[in-house]
Amino acid sequence: MQDRISIALVGIGKIARDQHIPSIAEGSDFDLKAAVSRHGKVEGIENHTDFGAFLATRSGIRAVSLCTPPEVRFDMARKAIAAGHDVLMEKPPATTLGEAEALADLAREAGVTLFATWHSRFALGVAPAKAWLADKAIRSISIVWKEDVRRWHPGQAWIWEPGGFGVFDPGINALSILTEIVPGRILVEKASLSFPANRKQPIAADIAMRTLSDAPVSAVFDWRQEGPQTWDITVETDQGTLRLSKGGAELFFDGIENTAGPDREYAGIYERFAALIRARQSDVDFQPLRLVADAFLCAERLEVEAFED
Amino acid sequence: MQDRISIALVGIGKIARDQHIPSIAEGSDFDLKAAVSRHGKVEGIENHTDFGAFLATRSGIRAVSLCTPPEVRFDMARKAIAAGHDVLMEKPPATTLGEAEALADLAREAGVTLFATWHSRFALGVAPAKAWLADKAIRSISIVWKEDVRRWHPGQAWIWEPGGFGVFDPGINALSILTEIVPGRILVEKASLSFPANRKQPIAADIAMRTLSDAPVSAVFDWRQEGPQTWDITVETDQGTLRLSKGGAELFFDGIENTAGPDREYAGIYERFAALIRARQSDVDFQPLRLVADAFLCAERLEVEAFED
Repeated sequence: MQDRISIALVGIGKIARDQHIPSIAEGSDFDLKAAVSRHGKVEGIENHTDFGAFLATRSGIRAVSLCTPPEVRFDMARKAIAAGHDVLMEKPPATTLGEAEALADLAREAGVTLFATWHSRFALGVAPAKAWLADKAIRSISIVWKEDVRRWHPGQAWIWEPGGFGVFDPGINALSILTEIVPGRILVEKASLSFPANRKQPIAADIAMRTLSDAPVSAVFDWRQEGPQTWDITVETDQGTLRLSKGGAELFFDGIENTAGPDREYAGIYERFAALIRARQSDVDFQPLRLVADAFLCAERLEVEAFED
Repeated sequence: MQDRISIALVGIGKIARDQHIPSIAEGSDFDLKAAVSRHGKVEGIENHTDFGAFLATRSGIRAVSLCTPPEVRFDMARKAIAAGHDVLMEKPPATTLGEAEALADLAREAGVTLFATWHSRFALGVAPAKAWLADKAIRSISIVWKEDVRRWHPGQAWIWEPGGFGVFDPGINALSILTEIVPGRILVEKASLSFPANRKQPIAADIAMRTLSDAPVSAVFDWRQEGPQTWDITVETDQGTLRLSKGGAELFFDGIENTAGPDREYAGIYERFAALIRARQSDVDFQPLRLVADAFLCAERLEVEAFED
């Protein structure tokens, strides 16, 4: 067994408490040494309120995991890379493609590991779905991602601001699975974005895409879904139908369930981060963010009913 | 003197007649053998109305220059690459970053030359501006790009459609100069886009950017400018002020003019295309398009007065 890698967690909010802290604790790769957060604290470890002050302590901590909202991630990641830390970034990696690509450049120049995570790629059904699709001809893909924003983002004002991406915050999870399981690039053809009258980011989106072999890919994202929640990707192929449900957790071939087991998304993320650090490699795939940017670039904009939390 | 490279021109509209045809005729690198256009014709050479039919003739023509509006460029470029042609693309290279990156992949796999042109980079002042800036510290950059859309795009409906980019059609010229003369990436911080009530693309844009060394970069694009037209980039450095005027044609250091001579933008483009073909290289820099996508991604949207041609 190898030595544990010392790590600091930055941004102690819902995702840090729900996922990062338990996954680090249950895994055997990392040793959580410090937390940095303006408001949150983690019991039993060193706590900082200022990221610059944390970096200045030269704590000897090797890795930094950034779980803050995306608008502050670029400057933090840049400083962490400059200080020689290996860096994990929650999704989305940055608020613009330029920031994301600049971070990849900086990490390469500094010789540190940068891991732009897409947690949905670690859902149980994704790896077997990718393996199954590798030798099939895709005929069409349909993505339906409908959830209740009030349930999943209570009071998170940043999701409605530029860089928060609105309904693309969950939608980019679907796009991260899509770009993982389908060989080759995905092209955006048309998009329609629905903006609430009082919000800067869309609450719903319809996107028409295609694969490089011209199979149509449709995506419907909606944040106004009460009752049952839907996170489904259906792929029609020349050899049957694949369906990923529950955000990739459940996989069906022609209706027959293929996967079962407890969620391991964030456990998988930290295992991969440790492997990258030990191999001195980075994993920086910005295709999901690029699809979002392309959707905004070619979108028609609709105004819809104001949304109140 | 080397043999001339046979070339076909696709999309015989305003830019082809104003720039491409005279530049090919006056240069010594290419021999214009065919034109492909639904409506336009070029006297004295082979004319086709259908691009697929032209490709099927297997004419022996080596290079293809695509001057069509961007929304049809991807499929044409893909077919031309698949048929083994070297390909020049007018700006912008495609309607989405995904399309642009896919073309770069396909050209690399096929071993053909792909040249994503940005004509403003060949304006007289740009190369000396780049050389001068290389050892200066940039303090700030201001871009003002104000022109009358009625004068420069009479009746061109496609500029108001998704993929036409509205005021970014000229604005991307400024961004192509910016990314050529400034070392390192440019990051978009904030943008405000003004959409006419009856149009799908912006008629004006304000963009706040920064260089990787944190110098502020502001850009104001406006298509409602009657009277004098402005295409200026001003760079304040630790060693004086650089100004590019008239879209890069005129260069001033601390107010003193440095360049003079006739316009050679498209002559420069075709010299570069010939050099790339002879060296079996590609030139595919999508930074200007990426800045446009990032501006759309993080923009606030304003509705302004309807625009009628």
